[in-house]
Amino acid sequence: MTLQTPPPSTDLAETLLSMGRKARAASRALGKLSADDRTRGLKAVAAAIREAAPEILEANAKDMDAARAKGLDAAMLDRLALDGSRVAGIANGVEAVANLPDPIGRELARWTVPSGLDIARVAVPLGVIGIIYESRPNVTADAGALCLRSGNAAILRCGSESALSSRTLVAVMRGALTAEGLPEDAIQLIPTQDREAVGHLLSGLDGSVDVIVPRGGRSLVERVQRDARVPVIGHLEGLCHVYIDGAADPENAIAITVNAKMRRTGVCGSAETLLVDTAIAATLLPKLADALKAAGCELRGDGRARAIVPDMKVATEEDWATEYLAPILAVSIVDGIDGALAHISRWSSGHTEAVLTEDQAVADKFFADVDSAILLHNASTQFADGGEFGMGAEIGIATGRIHARGPVGAEQLTTYKYLVRGKGQVRP
Amino acid sequence: MTLQTPPPSTDLAETLLSMGRKARAASRALGKLSADDRTRGLKAVAAAIREAAPEILEANAKDMDAARAKGLDAAMLDRLALDGSRVAGIANGVEAVANLPDPIGRELARWTVPSGLDIARVAVPLGVIGIIYESRPNVTADAGALCLRSGNAAILRCGSESALSSRTLVAVMRGALTAEGLPEDAIQLIPTQDREAVGHLLSGLDGSVDVIVPRGGRSLVERVQRDARVPVIGHLEGLCHVYIDGAADPENAIAITVNAKMRRTGVCGSAETLLVDTAIAATLLPKLADALKAAGCELRGDGRARAIVPDMKVATEEDWATEYLAPILAVSIVDGIDGALAHISRWSSGHTEAVLTEDQAVADKFFADVDSAILLHNASTQFADGGEFGMGAEIGIATGRIHARGPVGAEQLTTYKYLVRGKGQVRP
Repeated sequence: MTLQTPPPSTDLAETLLSMGRKARAASRALGKLSADDRTRGLKAVAAAIREAAPEILEANAKDMDAARAKGLDAAMLDRLALDGSRVAGIANGVEAVANLPDPIGRELARWTVPSGLDIARVAVPLGVIGIIYESRPNVTADAGALCLRSGNAAILRCGSESALSSRTLVAVMRGALTAEGLPEDAIQLIPTQDREAVGHLLSGLDGSVDVIVPRGGRSLVERVQRDARVPVIGHLEGLCHVYIDGAADPENAIAITVNAKMRRTGVCGSAETLLVDTAIAATLLPKLADALKAAGCELRGDGRARAIVPDMKVATEEDWATEYLAPILAVSIVDGIDGALAHISRWSSGHTEAVLTEDQAVADKFFADVDSAILLHNASTQFADGGEFGMGAEIGIATGRIHARGPVGAEQLTTYKYLVRGKGQVRP
Repeated sequence: MTLQTPPPSTDLAETLLSMGRKARAASRALGKLSADDRTRGLKAVAAAIREAAPEILEANAKDMDAARAKGLDAAMLDRLALDGSRVAGIANGVEAVANLPDPIGRELARWTVPSGLDIARVAVPLGVIGIIYESRPNVTADAGALCLRSGNAAILRCGSESALSSRTLVAVMRGALTAEGLPEDAIQLIPTQDREAVGHLLSGLDGSVDVIVPRGGRSLVERVQRDARVPVIGHLEGLCHVYIDGAADPENAIAITVNAKMRRTGVCGSAETLLVDTAIAATLLPKLADALKAAGCELRGDGRARAIVPDMKVATEEDWATEYLAPILAVSIVDGIDGALAHISRWSSGHTEAVLTEDQAVADKFFADVDSAILLHNASTQFADGGEFGMGAEIGIATGRIHARGPVGAEQLTTYKYLVRGKGQVRP
């Protein structure tokens, strides 16, 4: 196994432009492979990751030492850490992507027009995707695998914390591709943590990068959205709401709300604000508050919520605008579905919201009126996840409005072209 | 009929922010209307345009006087000019959009996952679309109609040449919406030609604009792509190729090539470069050159083309890179399909290319290898048009890779959300 090393050029711009050209060439080659070839490559990558677990863990141990020395907090260390079971999980994730239906070449639509032309819309890869992410090493494999599945070449830029883990993973993946006679430059990692490299990538590398996918915290995504000269698919934040309607089943409502907030508080699909219908608040909220507090959750309520559960902290307007990513939940009592819709319309980040009710008309109204990427009826917001949606894995959850919305899996990393079959037609 | 006038505020930024807020409110209202309501609005708009033809022509006559005084060239004047039949054509275009299937609320996909969740992907409007265009007044109506059909609010910015024509058209359209009880702010026109207004629009108006669609020449599109802080759907240029294979039917090849170049030379789907297989060049090119010259086309050839047709001008490398939008055609002799693919891969703008051949294997290879938005087999590149694709009208042809590619009609002006139906599921 050889780590990908920087080319001899000391010119960072030229290094990156050269990576861009290699990625473009690899993307052309990848798109022409058969679905079976791409599947074979993915299975080889999964096997290689399993086999290289010792090297990957060794590299990760060095990353962990450096991270501890830098004083990273426990949550960051947890995101960075690998063990045998997590490496197996990474390999299984790649295997799951290998078993997904191949999205390339699918006929998305086909029709004949009055001129007699036969028009087909066929899925093709996006091309070259630049992925900028923070500490989780598994993103290296997930992103590389989803790009391979969808015929795209990936240029990865990892966070400095996971640099050695990611370099090792990429070297393993590239080695597996080479051994299968597939283009290793389908997966490249920027071999330096120089911050200027990000700027070059965001510039599009002279037309070699088609899309940028940022995966990380708000400041990263904002920088990418501000500076990118190529289209960006990303999510800014997941300020997810749960609305408990007066017609909710109380037991379900408690179980779902506790899960939506507390299953994992650091994921974008975790609930941040709870809206409770005034019609059910007096009976439900005390029990729900007890369940949340028992699970370790801090509650911050508006005046009406605190009138029912007085030991909540006071929620200020800032709380309605905050993605805590922590065991804290803002609570507001609202006047039925209309109150909930008004609150969500004002504060939602467009990611995921849930309505808990046994009244179908209320659920229908919520589904019709709320304009977020994912709406759930009687289920936890923590299902906002590509894997749970049956996409195998995800490269992120898009909260923008164009191209893809919600979980971005292999299918969302495609575009299409039109194949028009004529019989000598000229246009009058 | 009252023209939309600037608000009393002298602050341009505030004027535009206020337009943004009105557009956002209108887009929310529009998206909740039924398909029948949107259809009714479109039919009323078409009828109102027919009825207001005298006022529209009067305004256009003033625009034409000003344009002549400014010394605009004949092609520009032709794009700007309206007459009774063109106004009828504009109304018919709106009527055609009224008769299109409504894209909003369609269930694009639906499946159940192992957790038991029922997941539906449902089409919703993009939201607020900013459209920046140049001289053709018909874009005002086409863009407004396509936005209405797809539940989007439009903020239009027309070129200064068509300012009065466009203002009048917008006033007519808004009046028709108001009369039908629909939100008139679904269609707004920026009421000043101040160039700074474009900058404000490109900034996204404090989150009120979801997408920008530029429709015009290269310098406009480049400025928009450079400065926009919101996603852009646009096309940069249509450098379209026709490849005549050795196995082409000669008669068809001549008819299609003349049509592809000469039917209308100013449209983005007109052919700019002709590639002729060396296997057929000696017999076909003299006849084809005669037919093109008879139609008024200037030819510029490479050495091999000029060896066959000596009176062509010399084509330089710049010719392969030029979208003439004029009766000029660059001609290169290539070595079969591989030579054609190499040329197209190097010079194509990703818009539209045609292959003329009776050999299905060659057509298949062309379709598989060329990565442009529209590929045609044995048909003219001038079919690259939303109307010809059965989309009723188009707001442009996208050559980017994300969201929409090729003709952008009502369906392409949508995004989607996920409706997830559960029965109390929590995530383990």
